[in-house]
Amino acid sequence: MAVDFLKGISAELKWVETLIANRLESKYPEMVPLIKHSLKKTGKMLRPAFAILFGKIVGIEDEKSVKIGATLELLHNSTLVHDDVIDNADIRRGQKTHNSIWDNTITVLYGDYMFATAMNIAVELENIDVLRKIASVSKSLVTGELIQNANAFNFPPKREVYFEIIKLKTAVLFSACCSLPLIVGGKEDLLPLAEKFGEKLGIAFQIVDDCLDFKADLKKLGKPKLIDLPEGKATLPVLLAMENGEEDVVDIVQRVFKSKGDVFDERDKKTLVKILEKNGYLKEAFDFAKILISENMEILERFENNEYRKTLFKICDFIINREF
Amino acid sequence: MAVDFLKGISAELKWVETLIANRLESKYPEMVPLIKHSLKKTGKMLRPAFAILFGKIVGIEDEKSVKIGATLELLHNSTLVHDDVIDNADIRRGQKTHNSIWDNTITVLYGDYMFATAMNIAVELENIDVLRKIASVSKSLVTGELIQNANAFNFPPKREVYFEIIKLKTAVLFSACCSLPLIVGGKEDLLPLAEKFGEKLGIAFQIVDDCLDFKADLKKLGKPKLIDLPEGKATLPVLLAMENGEEDVVDIVQRVFKSKGDVFDERDKKTLVKILEKNGYLKEAFDFAKILISENMEILERFENNEYRKTLFKICDFIINREF
Repeated sequence: MAVDFLKGISAELKWVETLIANRLESKYPEMVPLIKHSLKKTGKMLRPAFAILFGKIVGIEDEKSVKIGATLELLHNSTLVHDDVIDNADIRRGQKTHNSIWDNTITVLYGDYMFATAMNIAVELENIDVLRKIASVSKSLVTGELIQNANAFNFPPKREVYFEIIKLKTAVLFSACCSLPLIVGGKEDLLPLAEKFGEKLGIAFQIVDDCLDFKADLKKLGKPKLIDLPEGKATLPVLLAMENGEEDVVDIVQRVFKSKGDVFDERDKKTLVKILEKNGYLKEAFDFAKILISENMEILERFENNEYRKTLFKICDFIINREF
Repeated sequence: MAVDFLKGISAELKWVETLIANRLESKYPEMVPLIKHSLKKTGKMLRPAFAILFGKIVGIEDEKSVKIGATLELLHNSTLVHDDVIDNADIRRGQKTHNSIWDNTITVLYGDYMFATAMNIAVELENIDVLRKIASVSKSLVTGELIQNANAFNFPPKREVYFEIIKLKTAVLFSACCSLPLIVGGKEDLLPLAEKFGEKLGIAFQIVDDCLDFKADLKKLGKPKLIDLPEGKATLPVLLAMENGEEDVVDIVQRVFKSKGDVFDERDKKTLVKILEKNGYLKEAFDFAKILISENMEILERFENNEYRKTLFKICDFIINREF
């Protein structure tokens, strides 16, 4: 886990990991290597962190927040496993993907297994309102994936489609992380605020994530990753450039999309990154995320002022300043 | 829907279909063709039929039984959609599969969408005990698929693996169909009986299904389908023959499995079917199913005697006498 300022809840995050490991466990030896592999490397654990922090703020039992966090993290990870099959990805979080070790068949089923396990953890919360939201979130996540796939390589790409996908795939999940503890704690008054906070946070997080695809990746010899465009995804900086009539960008996107990602040479890459950087589209996209985050800072003021709220402020800060 | 004696509950089965269609519905135009296609042809609807019949017997509201039936049918269908990707199948229920029209990517996601939708229907029942069972069933289904895949082409195939897979993939689901209405209705006394009934029924159903793979298929020029063995699955009649030391069967299975299903010529097919038929292994497997069904007839005697129980008797009868 890479994020220092989450040290204050590291015990609870460890608990989330243990719970996930525990619930994935199977008496069938055939399952063991698949499960072990999926536990090797965790992500930033931001989603469970929000569940735990909001849980602390509204004063519900840690066990409940941990179960919310574990459910949503596992749900998220199950979609990543299917994503890796779809994108034919070999590496995720510096680790070989399931599909690169086993085959697509086993990996699809293992993703299903994670999804089913998430639902089993959710049920342990014994709260219908919580389950209703989790079931709804799971449907949004998949719908988002489907919409993204159906629109991949569509030219010209549309801003409203981009935002719809972000909402379905990321914002809805973040929103659930932040608001489910309030449902458990019966804090109806603050519930809409927590929902709104999570939604804005998710959108900001995804926009920054998308921007980082164009920024120099220090681990990789200073080159940007540039993986979204050849997968048929035009993200906010590109959309802003196109909307502003940047002909070179329009040409490049058209060429990449027409060739289904095959035609994207070094010159195009350099041109694209240069325009997005020099003409301010990356900044504009970042600024968009920053506005959402500053709105969130205001929302946070409405919650009790304690160390956990402070951590939330720090996470907000991290999200718009992160480089990974 | 092909089964005549279900006429008495045809309105409720229609309701299940409508509910599924309704809950799959999406505001996103990208989803519409996928959803429409999955509604084109329903299966035998046996699973919802059991939920409805047991619901009638214990006197719960039809709406609840319909929701149980819709959840479990959709859960079942979601696994079939992923199955078709895995088996690279073109046709299911006389209809083109999703993966043969769209690609594997979209189909995997659409299977996830069905799974998520099933969970959303389940939540409408607003009953934690029901949800706990449904979540657990979904995990069993996937585990069964994984165990089946991990053991495909393993030589020699083992009887205990065969029965474990049947239990996880079929019996657990049938058991849920029969027993969930009793959980809803608070009939704790009869609950273990309904569970047992469903479990035996599921095992019998699957064994008969597996036997039919070796029986002449009248729709297909009188030839048996023989699709299980080249997919690496040795079913009960084959296992019985191997356990009894039928050398030709052992040789054929070894050859088919070693070649991952590629080597399975007409002579082998004829020899296999002939031995299974003439030396009584198909009958032995059928008899195994018949014993389970006759045990079920006894269990049924413990439930109230009415038209719905009569239908259950008929379904039991159908299961061991069906030819499709």
